[in-house]
Amino acid sequence: MKTLVLLMCLAVGCLAQAPHPCRSPPLLTGALSVSNVKFYGFAKYTYDALGQRIRFKEMGSYENKTFGIDALLLYREGIMYTIYHGNKTCKKDRLKTEDFHPMEIPKDASLLGQVVLGSSSGPGQGLLVNTWYGEQVTPTGGKAKWMSTFTEFGCVPVSTTYYTDMTGWVLTTFFNIVVGIEDPQEFIPPNFCKDVTLDDNAKAANFYTIFNNAKI
Amino acid sequence: MKTLVLLMCLAVGCLAQAPHPCRSPPLLTGALSVSNVKFYGFAKYTYDALGQRIRFKEMGSYENKTFGIDALLLYREGIMYTIYHGNKTCKKDRLKTEDFHPMEIPKDASLLGQVVLGSSSGPGQGLLVNTWYGEQVTPTGGKAKWMSTFTEFGCVPVSTTYYTDMTGWVLTTFFNIVVGIEDPQEFIPPNFCKDVTLDDNAKAANFYTIFNNAKI
Repeated sequence: MKTLVLLMCLAVGCLAQAPHPCRSPPLLTGALSVSNVKFYGFAKYTYDALGQRIRFKEMGSYENKTFGIDALLLYREGIMYTIYHGNKTCKKDRLKTEDFHPMEIPKDASLLGQVVLGSSSGPGQGLLVNTWYGEQVTPTGGKAKWMSTFTEFGCVPVSTTYYTDMTGWVLTTFFNIVVGIEDPQEFIPPNFCKDVTLDDNAKAANFYTIFNNAKI
Repeated sequence: MKTLVLLMCLAVGCLAQAPHPCRSPPLLTGALSVSNVKFYGFAKYTYDALGQRIRFKEMGSYENKTFGIDALLLYREGIMYTIYHGNKTCKKDRLKTEDFHPMEIPKDASLLGQVVLGSSSGPGQGLLVNTWYGEQVTPTGGKAKWMSTFTEFGCVPVSTTYYTDMTGWVLTTFFNIVVGIEDPQEFIPPNFCKDVTLDDNAKAANFYTIFNNAKI
């Protein structure tokens, strides 16, 4: 009986706790859409926080011109490949290893609130999520405001809005996520990238370099 | 055995069907947030499609000034109350009965796609939704583009984006919805509204009049 009461107290205690910043599962395969006033993109990605590797394939339009991107970011090796399938060429950039950021809510984030997206009245009709916000310094030294929604169960990203003076509001929605890596070969550069040399003089790339390398 | 095969075929047949435009449950209580570049609002609402009644309580900010709204829209009676709790007064406007639109995806809408918001890898980690888009004529005769996401199960609204040249993109997110009316008194105007007379000469109100009547 005592054990039961103890267990119930523990259970209630756990349920009563406020949401805590969390880190998403380390292996994810999924899709995202990202948009601001001038830009719309749809990407499929494979994310490996253990190996610090991201494969990112995006189609989109910028100021009504379409573009395609295929990038492989190997943070641990410090290398980013931009892959051009059309003419089977590659661009190889240096990547700063310390620039890898896992998908997570930073520990100093503030909780905006917990809501059920949709409805809690029936199975499959709603999703319990926590929304967090904060500020951070951008790579260029500016200030960014962000707001992120992650699921309460599983700490899976649902959406993020990000504001800088340069970009305006950028809305990203995450969907069709499965926990795990659907195809580990996504992290291996294609054969035609093998002999491409690294431009040692070039400035180290970051995530945004992907877009500069895009074929428009 | 034959019955089993038939049942399985039926089940697979149903599952294989493409999503159809749908209408939300007729009685809903919930919350929404709505925002565009200049405007942010948070509203609690009670929605009765059977009686064609909506109660709408909103707090928000427009160009950094905060405002509060409490409106009761009785479409069947053709009356809208704007309720000012501060000084216990009311404004009574005429409402066009035919302007009541149930929460639904119009039959001529196009399906953008079906996705799982978040993840399908674990219980409570994702939400199966359908996104639809279309165009419509605004009350002022302009053109509006819209995109709406409803749950596959239960046809519950999740989010809507709406574009007109006048408003820009307006993003609405629906959450904490329960099927049913939490408090039926929400549809009864407070006592201090009883003796307010209807301005018969005034132009008929519509949903947007709520915002014009807002106390800023």
